Formats: sequence, C-alpha cells, structure tokens
Amino acid sequence: MRFRRYLSQLSSISATPESGITRLLYSSTWKEAQEALHTICLRENITPSFDSVGNLFGRITGSKIPGEIILTGSHIDSVINGGRFDGQFGVVASLIAMAELLETYGAPKKTLEFVSFAEEESSRFAYGFWGSKNMLGIADSADVIALKDVDGISFPDAMTDAGFSFSDYRPAKKEGVSAFVEVHIEQGNILSSQQKQVGIVTSIVGLVCYTITMKGLANHAGTTPMDLRTDALLGFSTFHLQATELARSFGAPLVLTCGELHVFPNSSNVIPGSVSFSIDCRHTDQLVLHQFTTALMQLLEKIALEQSLEVVTDCWLDIPPVPMDDTLIEKLDSICQTKKLTYQKMSSGAGHDSQIIGEHIPTVMIFTPSVDGISHSPQEFTEEKDLLTAISVLKDLLYELAY
Amino acid sequence: MRFRRYLSQLSSISATPESGITRLLYSSTWKEAQEALHTICLRENITPSFDSVGNLFGRITGSKIPGEIILTGSHIDSVINGGRFDGQFGVVASLIAMAELLETYGAPKKTLEFVSFAEEESSRFAYGFWGSKNMLGIADSADVIALKDVDGISFPDAMTDAGFSFSDYRPAKKEGVSAFVEVHIEQGNILSSQQKQVGIVTSIVGLVCYTITMKGLANHAGTTPMDLRTDALLGFSTFHLQATELARSFGAPLVLTCGELHVFPNSSNVIPGSVSFSIDCRHTDQLVLHQFTTALMQLLEKIALEQSLEVVTDCWLDIPPVPMDDTLIEKLDSICQTKKLTYQKMSSGAGHDSQIIGEHIPTVMIFTPSVDGISHSPQEFTEEKDLLTAISVLKDLLYELAY
Repeated sequence: MRFRRYLSQLSSISATPESGITRLLYSSTWKEAQEALHTICLRENITPSFDSVGNLFGRITGSKIPGEIILTGSHIDSVINGGRFDGQFGVVASLIAMAELLETYGAPKKTLEFVSFAEEESSRFAYGFWGSKNMLGIADSADVIALKDVDGISFPDAMTDAGFSFSDYRPAKKEGVSAFVEVHIEQGNILSSQQKQVGIVTSIVGLVCYTITMKGLANHAGTTPMDLRTDALLGFSTFHLQATELARSFGAPLVLTCGELHVFPNSSNVIPGSVSFSIDCRHTDQLVLHQFTTALMQLLEKIALEQSLEVVTDCWLDIPPVPMDDTLIEKLDSICQTKKLTYQKMSSGAGHDSQIIGEHIPTVMIFTPSVDGISHSPQEFTEEKDLLTAISVLKDLLYELAY
Repeated sequence: MRFRRYLSQLSSISATPESGITRLLYSSTWKEAQEALHTICLRENITPSFDSVGNLFGRITGSKIPGEIILTGSHIDSVINGGRFDGQFGVVASLIAMAELLETYGAPKKTLEFVSFAEEESSRFAYGFWGSKNMLGIADSADVIALKDVDGISFPDAMTDAGFSFSDYRPAKKEGVSAFVEVHIEQGNILSSQQKQVGIVTSIVGLVCYTITMKGLANHAGTTPMDLRTDALLGFSTFHLQATELARSFGAPLVLTCGELHVFPNSSNVIPGSVSFSIDCRHTDQLVLHQFTTALMQLLEKIALEQSLEVVTDCWLDIPPVPMDDTLIEKLDSICQTKKLTYQKMSSGAGHDSQIIGEHIPTVMIFTPSVDGISHSPQEFTEEKDLLTAISVLKDLLYELAY
C-alpha cells in the first residue's frame, strides 16, 4: 500500500534510535523529507513547487475554475524525538487522497493542492507556524532574523543553508485558496477512550499562558520554626491546588496546567526562597477563558497576601479560540454519517496550522485517534484502519469541494 | 581589638566579590587560613599542631592535670559564598578566649585546647564532619577515597596537595578530651526575633531525609481533559499542603521542609509525568520524629492511591537527636545569670560538629544571634556586642572547667 510505503519512507529519513523522528526546520533530514515528497509528487502526477521559505505545494490544476484552490495538508517538521504521525501523517494523507481522486475521477473542476508546511512546532527556533504564516503573508523577516538555535546557528543561516535564501525572502500571500482541510492525529485520548473513529474539529481552543514568580524568604530548613517561614514553594502548592479546583469548577473544555516549575535555591536543606512556574489555560470560549484567568489572578493575589509572598505575573501568550468553518463541519458530518462512521465533534486542545489559517480562510480539521492519547513521543501511534478512515473522509470532502 | 583583626584577617583570605567567603576543604585559601591560625597561635603563646587530616589544634598545657583536655573550637571551612561567621567565628572565639585566659590567669590546671576543624560543611566533597569524625577516630579512608569534587579532583589528591598525605593517613582518636564547647552563630531567627543575647543549646535535633519520586503520566496540556490526567506535580502539591498541616499539628520544634523539587519533563505545555522532591524533617525527640515520619509516609501512600500515582521513597538520612551535656548546660545557665544576660535554652535545628562529638564526649554549644536568621549567605551577620558576649561566656565556662 503506497500510503504505508510513503509514511515509512518519510519516517526513516529522520528516524531516532527510539523509533521516533526528529525533523527540525531547515535541517538536512528536513530537506531530505521535503525533497522525497517532491519526488513522490512527480510520480503521482501532482505538480510540486517550493515557495520562498520551503513550504512544498503539490498541484492538480482545476479544469473549470483553476484560480480557486482547495488546499489540504499539514506540517512536515517534528518536535525532538517526536512521533511518526504528528504533522507528517496529514501531509501523506493529503497527498494520497489527491492521488487517488486523480486516478479515479481525473482532474477536478477547481484546483486541488496539497501542502507540506515547512514548520509548525517551533522546535528549533522560538517561532511557530512559520509555514502557514508565510502562506498567509503574515510572517516577516524581522520576526526571525535574530533567532538562533541551541547550537548558535542563526535562522537566516539555517534557511539559506537549506537552499532558501533569506536575503531574497519577501513575505507573500498565496492567493485563491477558498478552503483548507487538515488531517491530524488527535494527540489526546478522547477519541481513543470513547472508541470513536473520527473527530470533526469545531474549534481550536484559545490559550493564555503566564509565567509567575513568587518570592518568599530562603532560610535554613533546620533553624527556622514553621511559623517563621515564608516558603515560596508552599505558596505554589497552595495556589496549584486551589487553581485546579477552580478549573474543575469551570468544567470541560477548560484545562489548566502548571507544567514547568523552578525552585530556588532548590536545595534539600534550604526553605525555597522563590519559585517560578508556568500556567497554561485553554478554552473554546474566549469569554469563559478570560473569566477564568481573571478569577485565577485574583486567587493568586489572595494567596500572596495570605502568605506574605511577593508575586510577579507575566502573561506572555493570549491566543483567542478559532472556530472552524460551519459549512465544512456540516459537510464532514454528512460524510461521516453516510459512511456510517463513529465520530465526534470536538474542540482541539492543541494548536495547529489550522488555527492560523482558520482566521483567514474557511478551514476544518479531521482528527484521527491517538492510542492512549500519547503524542510528541516515539510511542505516538494510530491504528492503520483509523489512518485509512481519515484519508477516505478527506477524499470525500475534497471531492465535494473540488469536483 | 585583636578579635576583630583576626576575624577580618581570616575573612579576607577567602573573600568573595559579595563579601562572603568560599573556603572549601583542602583548597589553597583553606590552607592559607589554617596557616594564618597557626601563626596567630604562636603569637598568642598557644602551641599549634596539625593532625594527619589538617585539623589545627592549639594547646595550653595544664599545670596540674595535663592529660585531661578541655577542648573548644569549631570548623574553618565554609559553604560556597557563605558568611564570615559560620564556623570561623567559633574558631576565633575559642582562640581569643584562651589567649585572654592565659594573659589574665596564666596556665590552667587542665590542658586547654582550641581546634579549627578541617571540614564540617560537605561543600566540596559529599562527606561531612571529616574534621570532628577524625578527631574521634570514627572516619575511615574508605569513606572518602572514591569522592571527587565538581572539577573531578579526587579527595586523596586534594588532601595530599594540601600537604596531608592521604597514603600515610590512618584514623586516630584524640585521647583525653573531657569536655567540648563550641561557639556558633544560631543560623536561625529565634534569638534575633526574641532579642536574646545568648542561646544555650540543650540538644541538636534529629534529622530524617527522604527523596520521593512520584510518577504519573506526562501528557499534552491542551488535549487532555482535567478528568483524564495523572498529574505528578498535582500529587506533590496535595502532599506538600497536607504534610505541612500535619507538621504544624505536631507543633514546635518539629520542622518539615520540601526544599528541592524536580519536575519532568518540566515544559509549560506538558502535564508533569513525574516529580522528585526532598523531605527534611527534624525534631529533638527521636520518638516524636519517628511518629511524624510514619504518619508522613502514610499520608504519601494515601495520596498516591487517591491520585493513581506510583511512589518510590528513599530515606537516605536518619540521624538521631543528640542531647548536650546537662552539667555543662547548667554551668552555662549559671554564668548567664551571673552576667545578667538575656538568654534562651534551645535546640539547634542545624547540624554541628557538636552533634558528632556529643555522642562521645560531654559537649555543649553557645549560640550567638544571627541577624534576621540569615546564614550560608554573604548577608550573614551578628552584632559585635553579641560576638563579644559569646566570647565572654565561653571564657567563663573554660575558666570553670580548666582552672
């Protein structure tokens, strides 16, 4: 089966010893993967072309309305030692769906294009969605010119070395795209735990992120009685529990995560003098999300006051929820019903190219189950029957849109 | 005032830019400090001698009972960028007290010795109390032969380089010591907050230390609903709050500290999959301490069960409380009353050479206030009047014991 062959060919290019993949933007294996896709396109009678930043497009020109493009795809980059499905499966699914449509029905009325976005994960440089933002003309060289990777290689050097001259780069919007469809693994365990074959994404959650610093007083663990302490870590623990209760009281789809925590001086015999920690909150409703973060900041102030802690808050990300296109959602709904699939309409808790594109172009996502919800890990896995189901749903939608 | 001169001379040898000191065992500044003390002894008519590991003793031989030694002193090493009083002040106080006694009263009946212990802090090598343990004959070359410092220098090489041949080293007990008195800064804020001039240490707390690992399931912060999480950091926070409540319910002098915490993978958008953290519990009563740790481990199990966390516990230290000598405590009590000093009998929450020596030889400690309880920091400070008071109390006690 060519789908299996292509997916395994791409995976082998960037394979890690743990059977995951590491494919960072503009690395040699990134370049090799995009070139392999370029070759596959030629073999499948799909016309490939790179844009100026390394997004690979593959085109089947429409016979009636060639200027209107139905676009499908995902990103080709991965996190470090990530899985074989995140991004890459969506790219392969799009290519296969188009190739099969072409073989069965010939050229579509509208132009069909697949895209393998250069970058989404921000795994190499502290900038995400470089691929889709460039397609929309909303990226800028100023955003990335000063960035360096962990080895000190600059973004411009990395890009130029990969064959895409940074000095020649000019942001340019791709015109004519009337719909975008992205197939992606769920990266959560909702479909897997509920035994559903397909997820139809209705919106991508909004995300608010903070870094909080709490300052108490570092002191000797042995010589400072319990009632003379200002323990910053105890301040965190108090906040973490009460904030989690608050999040639960708001109910799904609200999620709250404190994933990163640094303790100072972090020594077993010293009372923590300060801590810094992350807060990540997500919800599909902007209003509810901001009601929650307001309550959260009030809680933080209350605890700081009670425990005589000094608190510094830095809200460094506030991305609004992005709804997917209602018409495209309805079409997917009908397709799943016709095909008698078990499916679920759901929000995406993870960020995707579709949230960038969905603000500009009618967009929808098709989720395929992640076994045990595991993602960003070599253990990331989806059953082949589910992968094939996702491709067949995509194929039906592309047929409706382009033929 | 020679006391001020000697203390500042020693501090300048190992000064850090922040006006603290860094004096690690067998370093060049450690060697210089011990040699400076050797020279001071000669000037003060106190006979200096190094033992085989670099403990410096200074002797005024007794006129009547020269074989019985009244010993006083503390350690000369420091933590990295520590203060100018921890250890070093006790060494200088002992030397000054003996010098003044000699000047005023001539030779004592019993032998008076001061000691500048080579090491107590375990700041360079993962071994503490090297000085006092060697004096007692309870250290062994096997304990340290494999140790290396952060630069990869082995303990034997460091010792030999400092002029104390490791290959010639044989553990040897110092005979004839009938009492040991150590002057030390409190390193806590009990005396300072209660405006007391002197602390008489009645016992040194027992200490039980654990490293706990809690394992949950790392997962995507956006795609995992609140009710499908096994968040290891939430397990820690729950334990930390309940354990602190438990500690408070036991009351003083029990103290509980979680000072060190590591979160994995420690990424803002990943639910913590595991955490490891330290527990440090101290109490003067061995029975109460173990009642507490038993309750603490039950609490840990309960929370692990409730939150489906896997827990691994490692109890890596269990030092019993060491009572100070009642007779010596009473003598100090009388001296303080006679001198009309404000003082407090108290336990020491910090470890000291006295806790090692106190298990073998009648021992007592004199505490002098630490301003704001700050220690192991360049900000460590004690008012000069309090330092002088501690020296005068020591002098009176040595007079009673040796003259």
